[in-house]
Amino acid sequence: MYLAEVKGNVVATTKNEKLIGSKLLIVQPINPAFENNGQPLIAVDTVGAGFGDRVIIASGGSARTVFQDKTPIDAAIVAIIDSLEIY
Amino acid sequence: MYLAEVKGNVVATTKNEKLIGSKLLIVQPINPAFENNGQPLIAVDTVGAGFGDRVIIASGGSARTVFQDKTPIDAAIVAIIDSLEIY
Amino acid sequence: MYLAEVKGNVVATTKNEKLIGSKLLIVQPINPAFENNGQPLIAVDTVGAGFGDRVIIASGGSARTVFQDKTPIDAAIVAIIDSLEIY
Amino acid sequence: MYLAEVKGNVVATTKNEKLIGSKLLIVQPINPAFENNGQPLIAVDTVGAGFGDRVIIASGGSARTVFQDKTPIDAAIVAIIDSLEIY
Amino acid sequence: MYLAEVKGNVVATTKNEKLIGSKLLIVQPINPAFENNGQPLIAVDTVGAGFGDRVIIASGGSARTVFQDKTPIDAAIVAIIDSLEIY
Repeated sequence: MYLAEVKGNVVATTKNEKLIGSKLLIVQPINPAFENNGQPLIAVDTVGAGFGDRVIIASGGSARTVFQDKTPIDAAIVAIIDSLEIY
Repeated sequence: MYLAEVKGNVVATTKNEKLIGSKLLIVQPINPAFENNGQPLIAVDTVGAGFGDRVIIASGGSARTVFQDKTPIDAAIVAIIDSLEIY
Repeated sequence: MYLAEVKGNVVATTKNEKLIGSKLLIVQPINPAFENNGQPLIAVDTVGAGFGDRVIIASGGSARTVFQDKTPIDAAIVAIIDSLEIY
Repeated sequence: MYLAEVKGNVVATTKNEKLIGSKLLIVQPINPAFENNGQPLIAVDTVGAGFGDRVIIASGGSARTVFQDKTPIDAAIVAIIDSLEIY
Repeated sequence: MYLAEVKGNVVATTKNEKLIGSKLLIVQPINPAFENNGQPLIAVDTVGAGFGDRVIIASGGSARTVFQDKTPIDAAIVAIIDSLEIY
């Protein structure tokens, strides 16, 4: 999984029916120093994340496990970060 | 998932039988500022996307969930973007 | 999926038994302008592609769907390109 | 799989319920010379790894196989390295 | 799949139980000119590959198909290269 910060959301009227009701968030991958790390991606929220939250993203088939049905998503927010402990 | 813009399509007479009838589009990945982000890819359309549409692409096994049968695709257009809300 | 050009093939006597009989081709990823795009990979042919053909490659689990049995391949040629239509 | 060094952990109160009880570690990918190789990622520990351990990370669906249930993780620590033998 | 050269192996006493008995090799990805192509990875041997062998690596879920049980590996050596034929 990787760290990311929630930057916004996507408005999309026309979409795959299994995505109806899903919150599609724009997330910026970050490193543990909270610096940008690559280009923004789109992830489905599963934990009530909001603007500015630093989160953990699970990718690929792992993202699909957050839904009962097979859903065409490849990135899901699975945790909101309280803090990082770097030794 | 990532953002992309539809740039064209592929004409392919000889193809895996499960791809017959699928619309194979050339999509250019973009960032939230709508700037190019990497090289174009090929994605199967599932929402009626057309030239110039900005869309969301789901990759990997997630792309396969848009079909009932197991189909050899690893990228699918799953939404057409109306707008992005960046906070 | 991505575009690629067939550049050669691999001769391998010792291989996983499920790969026996598979044609292992060396493919060079290309962009829609037919310029090289990254390093060559190995893909299994499923459509009768030959030297110099420009093809579409499906990656990951999607590549495995071209076989009935679970086979240890992660890239398959799924179409031969006739032409690209760029708008 | 790739090599990594354990650098810290993530504290996250709000998370997908299937992640409750999982140890979310910050891991720095490294090469066989133990030099940093790319940006840190988040991996779930399955072998009792601790700070400073050099480990092997399995990614994607392979990471999920370490749990009985479908869990939204895409990286798991599957071994602690004693030594590398380079010929 | 991609080409790689076997460079060494990993000694790991503490590991996921499903990895017990697996040979964990350090492999250096190479291009068809046998030049290094990116950083070394860890792959499980399935064909009796040894030091210096040039091999084909299958990644992701495809690597898991070489075992009967679900095993947390994401890269497997599936063939030993005799030669490459570049046209």
